[in-house]
Amino acid sequence: MKGVILSLCPTTAVVDLCHETAAYDILGGSFLLLSAVRFFPAGTIHVAVVDPGVGGPRRPILAQVDDQLFVAPDNGLLSYPMASGTVRAVRVITAREYLLPQRSATFHGRDVFAPVAGHLARGVPSERFGPEIADPVRLPIPRPRRDPSGRLVGEIVWIDRFGNCITNIPTEDLEATAAGPTRRLRAILDGREVGPVVQFFAEVAPGAGGAVIGSTGHLELFINQGNLARKWGVETGASVIVDLGHPAE
Amino acid sequence: MKGVILSLCPTTAVVDLCHETAAYDILGGSFLLLSAVRFFPAGTIHVAVVDPGVGGPRRPILAQVDDQLFVAPDNGLLSYPMASGTVRAVRVITAREYLLPQRSATFHGRDVFAPVAGHLARGVPSERFGPEIADPVRLPIPRPRRDPSGRLVGEIVWIDRFGNCITNIPTEDLEATAAGPTRRLRAILDGREVGPVVQFFAEVAPGAGGAVIGSTGHLELFINQGNLARKWGVETGASVIVDLGHPAE
Amino acid sequence: MKGVILSLCPTTAVVDLCHETAAYDILGGSFLLLSAVRFFPAGTIHVAVVDPGVGGPRRPILAQVDDQLFVAPDNGLLSYPMASGTVRAVRVITAREYLLPQRSATFHGRDVFAPVAGHLARGVPSERFGPEIADPVRLPIPRPRRDPSGRLVGEIVWIDRFGNCITNIPTEDLEATAAGPTRRLRAILDGREVGPVVQFFAEVAPGAGGAVIGSTGHLELFINQGNLARKWGVETGASVIVDLGHPAE
Repeated sequence: MKGVILSLCPTTAVVDLCHETAAYDILGGSFLLLSAVRFFPAGTIHVAVVDPGVGGPRRPILAQVDDQLFVAPDNGLLSYPMASGTVRAVRVITAREYLLPQRSATFHGRDVFAPVAGHLARGVPSERFGPEIADPVRLPIPRPRRDPSGRLVGEIVWIDRFGNCITNIPTEDLEATAAGPTRRLRAILDGREVGPVVQFFAEVAPGAGGAVIGSTGHLELFINQGNLARKWGVETGASVIVDLGHPAE
Repeated sequence: MKGVILSLCPTTAVVDLCHETAAYDILGGSFLLLSAVRFFPAGTIHVAVVDPGVGGPRRPILAQVDDQLFVAPDNGLLSYPMASGTVRAVRVITAREYLLPQRSATFHGRDVFAPVAGHLARGVPSERFGPEIADPVRLPIPRPRRDPSGRLVGEIVWIDRFGNCITNIPTEDLEATAAGPTRRLRAILDGREVGPVVQFFAEVAPGAGGAVIGSTGHLELFINQGNLARKWGVETGASVIVDLGHPAE
Repeated sequence: MKGVILSLCPTTAVVDLCHETAAYDILGGSFLLLSAVRFFPAGTIHVAVVDPGVGGPRRPILAQVDDQLFVAPDNGLLSYPMASGTVRAVRVITAREYLLPQRSATFHGRDVFAPVAGHLARGVPSERFGPEIADPVRLPIPRPRRDPSGRLVGEIVWIDRFGNCITNIPTEDLEATAAGPTRRLRAILDGREVGPVVQFFAEVAPGAGGAVIGSTGHLELFINQGNLARKWGVETGASVIVDLGHPAE
């Protein structure tokens, strides 16, 4: 893919965002995009490929969300960025002159998405790649809710390489839950208490668990200097409850 | 290695091709080169290091194949590109002034190959690095054959990070095997049927097996949204048979 | 992090040094820095983040050692480079205008260290980031010693991705130990003989063990074309003894 991009536009700065997305995890890849793209310069072209339907009927798309461009399969991979930003335009890529002449059925990253990105980087305007569409695939994004007793209920949406488990519970919800300091909140993962909500990892002892507001602005469960996901066998989708903890406190 | 290259030529675009080659797998690394180098701009310098003989008598070489340059140990790592392209010149690297003054016995990537690449990128002509040789090491490349009953017999030559198992059977052979549509062909791995030959991964159900023409133009065995290599314990060299399947079909 | 750096200074060449440091291994990360930074151009900005104390009271620092700049947490991560180079200045980073306006408690790589690196790359002088300090954290660096019978005693300080186990025993000590050729020396790991000290990996048979002077100038234990760390379950800190071997030799 980098060879294709650099062949078309040799001065492009090509940066790897992540190769750690679980294979075939479209929604996980989408959350990763959400967490990272706003830190890139305006006009950055994000080539996103989690593409189990490659070679089949799913469409290739080119989307502008806020001031960022995305080249991706139309399978929901842009669901998170589309849900939190302003979608300027989504186009289906139909212009074959901007693709590799020979296209495999298994690697559209190289044969479709990379050449489109290379041509975009060279300055070809978005309109040239194909017509706008109104119906890009948007996957349902899991949102946290409150149970009858007022506890926050969310789920794990991303696991990072340290085994930290990122939830879909944003800071704001957490602050609304805490009558007083968030320190009194306890995080419960699949029915088992992980530890208190703290300000930073090292507030709990090495080996102990806790929860912290992570770098995406969501609650994140962890073991200090350990690997929570591996130790507890956590997978995305696992349920998370935030409770006020022991009433006696 | 990147520090050495950028010290010599700060404007070089340095791109990682792959760090997933199985350690010490020279022929696997060679297949990877074959699959990727043609997508890079003419004149790209490929620094290829799978080098179990580092520090010993094996020679360092600089080769031009088609319009691409290679800096590598002379251990067969260039066998695939040399076999499918036009070898313009192969030189043994003897000019010490283009190497790091202090050379370790374990990391010629840094001490020999990277500085040669850096000097090449700066514009030093190939002839300066050493004399041409006529006998670079070429490893035997496994080729598919037909068994007495007309079935194609090949082997696994590369396993990608999704666990897809790439064979040495090219599209052309496959088309010649199929009297009718390739859909009737079945792929057999180490004596066990994987599934039908299809046009794209998602043509079989998630979790089911199949075979597809992959991005290198060779037959590739897979489990849709699964990891065939891990599930079946596949390693390179495993035998693959393509059969016409049930005669009654 | 790359997005932040490139937003501030789009022409920066951003290079990944390593993502294989064991999580939370500060001293291991420090040894890695020592091994690599001298191969980078003068003035390179090294953003080093092994940071279990992120979000807590540990300070962010900017250090100049020899002709290289480092942006890192003040937790000992620069111990090795500081111990072997000339420390020109160490500053605590206090100037908030050079950080991201919103800082998470878990990802100062992105929110603190990357923006400081970006501003440095743009040309902001070091003095602007904060005042000099005289007490950066320096972790004790394990040094080899001689036991009463004159044997060298060291330990494993780094394990590379091939499973080679790098010790803290430098070439010089080894030469002083060998009355004659180093070939007579034997390396003993946690009480068990690995093999002879040789000039290069392939001097022992595939699958056999040995020791070699590695690319950092330290003795390195290995299995030829194997993975010593995995096979023997080696971890950093394991004891290494270099002995003259069988007296009869």
